[in-house]
Amino acid sequence: MKFKHIAGGLIDRRCFLKKGLVFSVAATVPASLSAQTVLKQERTQWMSEPGIGFSNYGHPSPFEKKTIRWTMANSHALGNGVSWTPLQDLDGIITPSGLHFERHHNGVPQIDPATHRLTIHGLVTHALEFSIESLLQYPKISRICFIECGGNSNAGWHKNPIQTPVGNFHGMVSCSEWSGIPLKLLLNETQPHHDAQWVIAEGGDASLMNISLPLNKAMDDCFIALYQNGERIRPENGYPLRLIVPGWEGVLNVKWLRRLHITNQPTMSRNETAKYTELLPSGKAQQFSFIMAAKSIITNPSFGHQLNRFGLYQISGLAWSGRGKITRVEVSADHGQTWLDAELQEPILSMCFTRFRIPLEWHGQAVVLSSRATDETGYVQPSRTELIAQRGRHGYFHYNAIVNWAISTQGHVSHVYDQI
Amino acid sequence: MKFKHIAGGLIDRRCFLKKGLVFSVAATVPASLSAQTVLKQERTQWMSEPGIGFSNYGHPSPFEKKTIRWTMANSHALGNGVSWTPLQDLDGIITPSGLHFERHHNGVPQIDPATHRLTIHGLVTHALEFSIESLLQYPKISRICFIECGGNSNAGWHKNPIQTPVGNFHGMVSCSEWSGIPLKLLLNETQPHHDAQWVIAEGGDASLMNISLPLNKAMDDCFIALYQNGERIRPENGYPLRLIVPGWEGVLNVKWLRRLHITNQPTMSRNETAKYTELLPSGKAQQFSFIMAAKSIITNPSFGHQLNRFGLYQISGLAWSGRGKITRVEVSADHGQTWLDAELQEPILSMCFTRFRIPLEWHGQAVVLSSRATDETGYVQPSRTELIAQRGRHGYFHYNAIVNWAISTQGHVSHVYDQI
Repeated sequence: MKFKHIAGGLIDRRCFLKKGLVFSVAATVPASLSAQTVLKQERTQWMSEPGIGFSNYGHPSPFEKKTIRWTMANSHALGNGVSWTPLQDLDGIITPSGLHFERHHNGVPQIDPATHRLTIHGLVTHALEFSIESLLQYPKISRICFIECGGNSNAGWHKNPIQTPVGNFHGMVSCSEWSGIPLKLLLNETQPHHDAQWVIAEGGDASLMNISLPLNKAMDDCFIALYQNGERIRPENGYPLRLIVPGWEGVLNVKWLRRLHITNQPTMSRNETAKYTELLPSGKAQQFSFIMAAKSIITNPSFGHQLNRFGLYQISGLAWSGRGKITRVEVSADHGQTWLDAELQEPILSMCFTRFRIPLEWHGQAVVLSSRATDETGYVQPSRTELIAQRGRHGYFHYNAIVNWAISTQGHVSHVYDQI
Repeated sequence: MKFKHIAGGLIDRRCFLKKGLVFSVAATVPASLSAQTVLKQERTQWMSEPGIGFSNYGHPSPFEKKTIRWTMANSHALGNGVSWTPLQDLDGIITPSGLHFERHHNGVPQIDPATHRLTIHGLVTHALEFSIESLLQYPKISRICFIECGGNSNAGWHKNPIQTPVGNFHGMVSCSEWSGIPLKLLLNETQPHHDAQWVIAEGGDASLMNISLPLNKAMDDCFIALYQNGERIRPENGYPLRLIVPGWEGVLNVKWLRRLHITNQPTMSRNETAKYTELLPSGKAQQFSFIMAAKSIITNPSFGHQLNRFGLYQISGLAWSGRGKITRVEVSADHGQTWLDAELQEPILSMCFTRFRIPLEWHGQAVVLSSRATDETGYVQPSRTELIAQRGRHGYFHYNAIVNWAISTQGHVSHVYDQI
């Protein structure tokens, strides 16, 4: 080992920039090749015949057909379930729209934008109804931000660590560039009454999903998205329009938005009473815990990966916080005993995925990798032990504890809990 | 008109934030609606029956089937031509991967990543051959950046202003988040000789496209992308790997990369002699003019759009520079006589699309809209008159003049040249 590193094999993140670093990935160094040798190499089929013609809309390679959302639907109601983003197969911070996670209650409606309307009514001076055509004429903003289901990672509450790919465990979070109309602009046109305090948002699908959003958040940074990653939102993500509530739990980001009812109290819907509440050690439940706290996950390596050579690896993962920007991600290779700062990939944006990376030198030593995020409020992602101390053992939502991946001496990666 | 504005109707960009602003889009104000009225509204089909089930990879709405790339192929060689990004239909800065522009010479190869190899050889101590599997183990970076064909917007050289949607005119530019391996890391492993000065990059398709890249640029910020917008690159964009040369002309961003030949002189290929050169007023040609200079285009409104009401509009467009960050975009509504700063949407990244926006109040006055970008080097996008003065009338590549859209008193949008 020629690098200075800390316990477990982590190396200062700046090492990769050093001139002269030889990465030594197995099987990359053949006999020296002359230009003539290269030119004489056998021509592949795709170098010998024309490729396929132009398409007006592109698709992934057939060789990547395993990079898909894992779906889990109710066998009695095929539109009720979850599809998960395969985080282990992705890089960067943008989730391709075709792989954005979904949580549906009654399937994906195929809405005709010509007939869909958004109505804002209730405690307002002017109730208004907007067609999609009229909404497209309003001023827009764009924002790259994550959406995370409040129930994401809930397998972390299980007694034993779940052994499954990271996307099937933590994949109810995705990150897109959304473009649309600041909700404040539309609400101002309706002139809410002075006693208005809540916005009840309702989706236009067959489940008529509804949630309660505090008016002050609605007037702050919420917006009505019409575009996702440049193009119009796809049906699974709310076509023709979706409420975006940056940093707050996914259920508030109502898809197929049809109605905003301005009230002075929350609706106390099923999603706010039976669901999305947190049972605390005191036996009382915490309700309206909207903000998704800071969290991070190492996506590479993660469960199911196999280290099959000795040498340098790049550890890579995602961090995000509903309270603002990620300011730090530390990584440990010795089950949380010592920590080293990972490099944060630019751009680092508020309430958005931040990609982190750090080198590891591995020569068959047993390693437990963990990542710990800190956000700009100073909040630090807790260990599982700390999370359970705060929230008890009956939690379901808002699981954001540090995740640990054990690398065996054979290079096999599995999920382990804290050492206690 | 209740806003202070400059000639043509432009308004200070902060006006949209004012409380109490009523946007007055036609047909948004119905009779006041009570909660009961809303609940009694006829249920649409998609509110009355379950939607469709989960898919493991999503697609756009069938109602958006007009949002496609316009393709122009050689009728005798269907893989030879261009597909254009429909910039007029998009918002934000990310181009969906399915709509990224393409310029192919011999179609899209369907490359099996298990057999594809990248070879680096020539003036190096260690010639190396990399499989995709080994490349995936190298350290990666991510970067959101544009790729623009050197021939983009060349219809601007025509004697008369072309009347066509903005994507068909300027759509050989797109912007993605690319993730991959810094080229410097791979080159360092080969140990280039001291007299090495150029990297000849060759694609693995049936056209064996090749270009010459100066070694110092290759060692600076170039990288070998394996991922685009989070997922593995699509076939049309170079699957399984593509050379990314940030800020430089598109032809250098070689798709299906198979070979990097390190030399002490450029290859002088057809792409460097017959093409991608610029004939100057002196009669001499300029060669190896790699950098794409600052440019901006108003995408909304643009040719083909129709203003069909009086009131407020948001003017929106894209700016970019191959020399760094965009620092300013000014917009004129009076054919370049007076200018007002547009708002630049965060994030503002180097060699990346920057979305700009500014309000316009329109009451049937004749308007000519123009946008003018400035980058962090102080370079200012030229008018067409200025560009022709510098480069003569025989240009084909690197057209980056200010684009003007005339709005008639009837609200019809057309393309016009400078007033001279």
